[in-house]
Amino acid sequence: MEIEVTQEKLSKALAVVSRVAASARTTLPILSNVLIRAEGNKVSLTATNLDMAVVEYVPVISAKDGVITVPARLLSEFVGNLPKGEKISIKTDGIKVKISADNYRSTINGVVADDFPELPEIDEKEAVKYEIGVDEFKVRLSEVIVAVSNDTTRPALTGVYFNTDGGNLYVAATDGYRLAENKIISGVSSEVKAIVPANSLQEVLRSLSDDMEKIEILFDEAQVRFRMGEIEITSKLIDGTFPDYRALIPKETEIELVLDKSELIRITKMAAVFSREVNQSIVCEIDAEKSVFIVSSILNEVGENRSEISVKAEKSGKVKVDSRYLMTAFNALEEPMVRFGMSAKIGPVLIRNEKSNDYRHLVMPLDI
Amino acid sequence: MEIEVTQEKLSKALAVVSRVAASARTTLPILSNVLIRAEGNKVSLTATNLDMAVVEYVPVISAKDGVITVPARLLSEFVGNLPKGEKISIKTDGIKVKISADNYRSTINGVVADDFPELPEIDEKEAVKYEIGVDEFKVRLSEVIVAVSNDTTRPALTGVYFNTDGGNLYVAATDGYRLAENKIISGVSSEVKAIVPANSLQEVLRSLSDDMEKIEILFDEAQVRFRMGEIEITSKLIDGTFPDYRALIPKETEIELVLDKSELIRITKMAAVFSREVNQSIVCEIDAEKSVFIVSSILNEVGENRSEISVKAEKSGKVKVDSRYLMTAFNALEEPMVRFGMSAKIGPVLIRNEKSNDYRHLVMPLDI
Repeated sequence: MEIEVTQEKLSKALAVVSRVAASARTTLPILSNVLIRAEGNKVSLTATNLDMAVVEYVPVISAKDGVITVPARLLSEFVGNLPKGEKISIKTDGIKVKISADNYRSTINGVVADDFPELPEIDEKEAVKYEIGVDEFKVRLSEVIVAVSNDTTRPALTGVYFNTDGGNLYVAATDGYRLAENKIISGVSSEVKAIVPANSLQEVLRSLSDDMEKIEILFDEAQVRFRMGEIEITSKLIDGTFPDYRALIPKETEIELVLDKSELIRITKMAAVFSREVNQSIVCEIDAEKSVFIVSSILNEVGENRSEISVKAEKSGKVKVDSRYLMTAFNALEEPMVRFGMSAKIGPVLIRNEKSNDYRHLVMPLDI
Repeated sequence: MEIEVTQEKLSKALAVVSRVAASARTTLPILSNVLIRAEGNKVSLTATNLDMAVVEYVPVISAKDGVITVPARLLSEFVGNLPKGEKISIKTDGIKVKISADNYRSTINGVVADDFPELPEIDEKEAVKYEIGVDEFKVRLSEVIVAVSNDTTRPALTGVYFNTDGGNLYVAATDGYRLAENKIISGVSSEVKAIVPANSLQEVLRSLSDDMEKIEILFDEAQVRFRMGEIEITSKLIDGTFPDYRALIPKETEIELVLDKSELIRITKMAAVFSREVNQSIVCEIDAEKSVFIVSSILNEVGENRSEISVKAEKSGKVKVDSRYLMTAFNALEEPMVRFGMSAKIGPVLIRNEKSNDYRHLVMPLDI
């Protein structure tokens, strides 16, 4: 194998694939390698952690066929440190990989590609396909992924649930204490119900760059593939049943206020400072008579705290919630004003943008 | 006690003192509190970790005499979250500290000031005094503090040695493997030899802000005080003998090259990537015949690396060093060009700025 490539192109591609290699279990050392394949003047870099695989195509100056694997971190750091604009030559001599550029010369000991695990294949003709703008995908998925559980004893909750309903594609996540749902594509014709591991989605999000416009998403029975720019990430799906979450989201709440997001974040943070000793629980209260929305901490050893926002409300109510969940929800909203809905003490808090109804974030109350 | 103060002033002052409170041992809980004292319309905040104490004066709108201590982190976070421009009122009611501002109201449980430890006092009339510009102090001290040891079994090496020699004030630090020295004031009349704990100096450096011009340094037998703007930091000195380091710095090295710093950093980093398995040791070599300066890694399991810079040299030589020490030294230099001096295999590497001779950084070779 022999490749000529610029430092910029190689360095950028290695950044993405070496992250996946780094996430691999260390029990199978070859997983920390990147597979370099040159075939018919096309060069691809591949890494896998067995749950997911990334393939990235690198535009090269010239290439002679061949394939080898080399330690991803070593190669990535070495290439990353070379000056921009440098022309890099990569040449194999058995398993020795000789890399040179102007005044820099390295030999990296590689491993034959035969030992590299098989990559997951999707039959693209049979797969269910969607396409979405990269910016939209990034924002809407990020708003939901915050609610994913990291409790591996309930694998279905460690992923994001891609599901169609009434001709729209939704993403949803819950950890049992809160739930977030977002509409990501309106008017789709084919149906899907699939739980995609949050780790794989995080990798997809990190791989997105400004020069990408569209992202293609392909599902088969057991796998999903994300294709964006020159990068293809294929991941196993999580085998399990996602809770029937739609039944949990109330159509309406008894009280609904429109509040300034930055003010809401400020007073929630202040109450949270005082509630560390009491599991971050704080109280949100609407006093219709005094026309105030109050966030307060529960009196404890360190002291207590109470902040108010003037509001117009028709009904009074009170709910105890985990301040961290509220903060996450507020921070995920895009619009400057928040629709804050609550029912009686036992009903969930429903948090939405003021205008758009696509994103819904539910926080369960404490002390039920 | 009753104080009226703006959010900006109080928040800024709390940031500095609460860092010191946070660094205190948790075995004496009151050390995590800040002491607030109002006396004759002057308000001061104080925190100590027993090794050092910080006192900061806060400009207030009004104040009635009194003194109390409150949890530093809680107060700092609460005040930090209040909107800028807000007028804050702090009022004690026994040990209850009531803090309010417009729509925000908190009660923090304080602790009586009697339990707060005594602060170290310096007799300023007897003390040896120096004065230096803040920017200069910051840069020159930072260049030296990087060489401090964190081996607490040799306490003298965990500090920076302030010492006068030939009418100049120097700072020096060494961990036994490398040594850095900088001249910080020329033409001083009084003498000093004192080891200041690096931790205290880090706190001084962090407390410096753009609106400060001068820093006053006062030494007595056992303590040092740094006074800058409205902040006073007093620290114990380290009781011990600093090595007679001047004898270790060679007047001249056999070979000396002037090299581009960014290029030097680049090739050192690249060799370092390959030398993780071999304790980061790399080889610097001057080949006078081929007119090149070479940095290379030692051949090991992962491979090997070699980079060259064209130079004019009269003598050849070779030395093995720890790449991390070289990197630290290069990064500490201010000028874009580096004077790189080495002798035979067993002599130390001497690293300086191209023009200024004030800063000297010595790295001991490996394999002696």
